[in-house]
Amino acid sequence: MSDMIVPSFGNDEDTGRKLAIICSKGSLDMAYPAFILGNAALGEGIAVDLFFTFWGFDIINKKTMDHLKFSPVGNTATHMPAALSPLPGVTSFATHSLKKSLTELDVPEVRDFLGLLKDSGANIWACQLSADMNHLVKEDLYEGVDAIINASAFIEMTDGAQLLFI
Amino acid sequence: MSDMIVPSFGNDEDTGRKLAIICSKGSLDMAYPAFILGNAALGEGIAVDLFFTFWGFDIINKKTMDHLKFSPVGNTATHMPAALSPLPGVTSFATHSLKKSLTELDVPEVRDFLGLLKDSGANIWACQLSADMNHLVKEDLYEGVDAIINASAFIEMTDGAQLLFI
Amino acid sequence: MSDMIVPSFGNDEDTGRKLAIICSKGSLDMAYPAFILGNAALGEGIAVDLFFTFWGFDIINKKTMDHLKFSPVGNTATHMPAALSPLPGVTSFATHSLKKSLTELDVPEVRDFLGLLKDSGANIWACQLSADMNHLVKEDLYEGVDAIINASAFIEMTDGAQLLFI
Repeated sequence: MSDMIVPSFGNDEDTGRKLAIICSKGSLDMAYPAFILGNAALGEGIAVDLFFTFWGFDIINKKTMDHLKFSPVGNTATHMPAALSPLPGVTSFATHSLKKSLTELDVPEVRDFLGLLKDSGANIWACQLSADMNHLVKEDLYEGVDAIINASAFIEMTDGAQLLFI
Repeated sequence: MSDMIVPSFGNDEDTGRKLAIICSKGSLDMAYPAFILGNAALGEGIAVDLFFTFWGFDIINKKTMDHLKFSPVGNTATHMPAALSPLPGVTSFATHSLKKSLTELDVPEVRDFLGLLKDSGANIWACQLSADMNHLVKEDLYEGVDAIINASAFIEMTDGAQLLFI
Repeated sequence: MSDMIVPSFGNDEDTGRKLAIICSKGSLDMAYPAFILGNAALGEGIAVDLFFTFWGFDIINKKTMDHLKFSPVGNTATHMPAALSPLPGVTSFATHSLKKSLTELDVPEVRDFLGLLKDSGANIWACQLSADMNHLVKEDLYEGVDAIINASAFIEMTDGAQLLFI
């Protein structure tokens, strides 16, 4: 496993710091920043809450979480011509390439990384409104999800936390 | 109205908490996270400042705010093939579908939601640089906008606030 | 130079406030919010740390930083039909237009703006994992980069900071 992704099991130093990450995107490339920053925070003794909402619901939906995709469409940093990126096969290719890069650096896959965060003490929350919009209930979600909560409950628990919206 | 979108009129408990949300995207799907989190925060007695900047200017531009669109292009969480999502009609269809889902859950439309936030005590700020880039003045903007301010003024007022960049 | 982009050289008032901005996008339009907010914060006597990661690595990669592009693909706030925006030439045209708008408002180009931030006291950090994924070392990066650090180091230094994820 990479130096970057050190599991933080057994870290029992409590800094009083809290980090709450709102995960609103469901693409593979925007799942990882939450995982990596969350894991780093746990390793520093920081309490971490992850709130999955809007498109980010795909990351904790049992049916989709193992098949997150990455598309270069609209992303100029991939240096792919805009006319090529929507072509059939490009999303699969780009997803495969990104996964390969991550695997080479020993970065765990989505389900494994969520398990790692959970085992390290992260709380995983699903957004009520997103669940309702997608007609999903708790049984449809990754088993590590603590609960489906509304935005008010999330806001309440983030008193004193540093926030990230991804 | 949905349980999730409870108007927070008359909440006079002051927690001392402040939440400042920078709204930089102008698509329909990225307008709602700011509204929903902002409204939840107001309901918890938290002072809320919304700062509309860059593409987010469309949300407070009188001419565009009632016609925000949602495009599945580049968004793999919509599960639409990348080759189909740019086709004519797809943006209209996707926008209509998203609006329908939101309406079914009693989530207000953009203008109404902004009015709700305003009535609940939120401050609504427009970015000076974005106004200049778009050649817009205050009269071009939603009447609930408190003022056009520059980034320095926004940074100054967010002392002690939790921040979100959407 | 625009009123909005006042260099903050020589501001030696220390407010104790800290702002840490995670720059994860590599497109031209998403580089500027970090620059403008960071510069405004420096002007208010706030310590600023910029952490370039994922696609945001393009902003500090010597080979790409002077050629950041903007694509209207997937961005409904550009009001360009989704079928047109991937066509050849559109990215170049949109990039040129955005640069022109910024230049007219005396907003510096990417390299100059980074230099301005650096001279005003900002710290510029590159993400270790992103460097590894891109097979880049410090010599490949903008000379103003202070160091390549991992997410844990970044999280550690942001104790007490306000956070933005762009």
